[in-house]
Amino acid sequence: MSLSLKDFEAAEGRLHGIIHNTELSLSSTFSKMAGGEIYLKCENQQKTGSFKIRGAANKIACLMSRGERKRIYASSAGNHAQGVAFAATSNGYASTIVMPETAPLAKIQATEGYGATVVLHGDGYDSAQSEAQRLCREDDGIFLHAFNDLEVIAGQGTVALEILRALPTVDTIVVPVGGGGFISGISCCAKLINPRVKIIGVQAAEVNPIARSFKEKKLVTADRNSTIADGIAVKCPGDISMEFIWQYCDDIVTVSDNEISAAMLLLMERSKQIVEPAGAASLAAVLSKKIDANKSRTVCVLSGGNIDVGFIPKIIEQGLVSRHRRLKFSTTVSDTPGTLMRVLQIVAENGANILSIGHDRHCPDILPSEIMLHIACEVGGKSHAEKLIASLCNYGYVINLE
Amino acid sequence: MSLSLKDFEAAEGRLHGIIHNTELSLSSTFSKMAGGEIYLKCENQQKTGSFKIRGAANKIACLMSRGERKRIYASSAGNHAQGVAFAATSNGYASTIVMPETAPLAKIQATEGYGATVVLHGDGYDSAQSEAQRLCREDDGIFLHAFNDLEVIAGQGTVALEILRALPTVDTIVVPVGGGGFISGISCCAKLINPRVKIIGVQAAEVNPIARSFKEKKLVTADRNSTIADGIAVKCPGDISMEFIWQYCDDIVTVSDNEISAAMLLLMERSKQIVEPAGAASLAAVLSKKIDANKSRTVCVLSGGNIDVGFIPKIIEQGLVSRHRRLKFSTTVSDTPGTLMRVLQIVAENGANILSIGHDRHCPDILPSEIMLHIACEVGGKSHAEKLIASLCNYGYVINLE
Repeated sequence: MSLSLKDFEAAEGRLHGIIHNTELSLSSTFSKMAGGEIYLKCENQQKTGSFKIRGAANKIACLMSRGERKRIYASSAGNHAQGVAFAATSNGYASTIVMPETAPLAKIQATEGYGATVVLHGDGYDSAQSEAQRLCREDDGIFLHAFNDLEVIAGQGTVALEILRALPTVDTIVVPVGGGGFISGISCCAKLINPRVKIIGVQAAEVNPIARSFKEKKLVTADRNSTIADGIAVKCPGDISMEFIWQYCDDIVTVSDNEISAAMLLLMERSKQIVEPAGAASLAAVLSKKIDANKSRTVCVLSGGNIDVGFIPKIIEQGLVSRHRRLKFSTTVSDTPGTLMRVLQIVAENGANILSIGHDRHCPDILPSEIMLHIACEVGGKSHAEKLIASLCNYGYVINLE
Repeated sequence: MSLSLKDFEAAEGRLHGIIHNTELSLSSTFSKMAGGEIYLKCENQQKTGSFKIRGAANKIACLMSRGERKRIYASSAGNHAQGVAFAATSNGYASTIVMPETAPLAKIQATEGYGATVVLHGDGYDSAQSEAQRLCREDDGIFLHAFNDLEVIAGQGTVALEILRALPTVDTIVVPVGGGGFISGISCCAKLINPRVKIIGVQAAEVNPIARSFKEKKLVTADRNSTIADGIAVKCPGDISMEFIWQYCDDIVTVSDNEISAAMLLLMERSKQIVEPAGAASLAAVLSKKIDANKSRTVCVLSGGNIDVGFIPKIIEQGLVSRHRRLKFSTTVSDTPGTLMRVLQIVAENGANILSIGHDRHCPDILPSEIMLHIACEVGGKSHAEKLIASLCNYGYVINLE
């Protein structure tokens, strides 16, 4: 099974004017960290917030050119939904997208905003998919698969044309991998142009069926899909995409959820970019040295940016804890007026900001006349935290870190 | 006082290879909201995270061409520090930046990372500035002012060259205004090329000396600088920059801190971009209709992206509250085993996620056998919140919204 360079170029022609040729930017920060040149291909800035529109729009343009004019059906909890909705509407097709009842409101609203009819069904991707297929059969519509489809794969591969045009000397392209359609297109297209370019896929360590299938040289599936990188948490790789991966990819590595969240925080802080967990997996693999980018030119594809904003504070707070920007401690004081104020005076003099205070009177280690205070505060970093603790100890407080 | 097109073009030549020609991107989301075409000029993606490097690098290149080789001194709590440090080091100049002792650790580390010697002094910008000038006099160095300097202004104006080259049909350019150097350069350069282009500045409503100086046609200063837009909270406009503004600007408007924070949240959510409060002021002015962008082509300059990551969760949480994504309520239950669990069961059945629980036994309105529960939870939006409340009421709970 294969595609020719002509297939990718034809897809690019069909996408012209519909999608963005997203920025490919050299990051001096990440280059310094990795010891080689690190470029970011910003598909998080793509229309509908991810690369998925490439495959969906190519597929629908192909249907149109063959005169197949029926309602489009698809199932998705995320980016595929938005890509299909936008591509369908902009080509004058009606579309129905079945999403799990647990899908975030922002994604449902975005999909409806692009003109699709959204049906909520079941509590996970699998039941949403069977419902979409059922509705599609009943209506004699067209089911648009998210990755296991040659015309979708040809659309996704257009990213490689853009990368190789902007940076013909690229050594390695790193791609987040879920169902495998994106890396199928990129690897096939890039190798056709220049077989020297290495293509490395990245999966979440918690849901890694393609990493395992690649190594075991047979198609295996995952039995769960719990990772923060929901965009690449696909249990069953496609048989078509797996054939491309065996043929064209050089390696598939995995990253932990913590490595992904550290990369997301750095992207916000240093590149001023919001990237969804799946989209940050490529950079996470480079920064955690799962991929050797030393002395070479590496493109990390940031595949999407559709993250519920309510999740961003969680990523940041966790990152601040691991950078010692949050200090939690407890200390015992007498349960009388003024004692809390005196502790807070020392905290304030040290320039730390209080986040929360807890009063524990049910603690086995204290006297009836005492109270255990639990204090959480914002500090500038490890040395600031140590200075504050030393200051409290100087005043005679016994500090227990939490 | 003026500059010629040649001055701006010469500055652009000096900056070539040092700075990025940042992306100018059409936003379909904001265009729809404003009723006209809205473009974002992404100086938050500029090297050092803001436009400030343009002015600093042009100034230092001019010093170099005149053979003035002394240590550079500057004072800044933020972007100017990083711009000067980077520009000085990359031209082989030593630099000393005086920052207030309260400056965020991340900005201090970034400035040192660009090769400057950082001196921490005093608790605000004013005392940092006098210390920098004192050190500079003692050492017979060169003091680099952040905005009141023609060669700095010429550097900042190069943004207008990039905008007019990429979008010659632009109608309006909207620029955040602090000391006034950025808008001085942009307005002078843009009007020289095309006097039809409107230039509108935006200040924070809380610190608006240039907006007032513009209207009152005399130089006034502000007596405080408390706004989340710290990057444009400058009390004393420069006399040089004010002359440019009177001559070349069409209007200076103001936006509230809440309008700025709403724009920041939308930029994260829809454009996947991190922008600092000052940098989002331009878009805030358009979205809050302080500037009429209807049926015209408007460029909002996002002037910088240097925000302490610890501040982002506060922006998001506040936005989620105003979008009804946070529900806080209290209810009275009997203080016996199982009562809390039964409330939480209803919350869980409604798909809401608990954020915090408080137990109040010191409330005048309850019986000794009762307890007041305070519950905060994540919901999908207003209708989800209403469904949860109705469900609790159905079970007989009396709900007080908080």
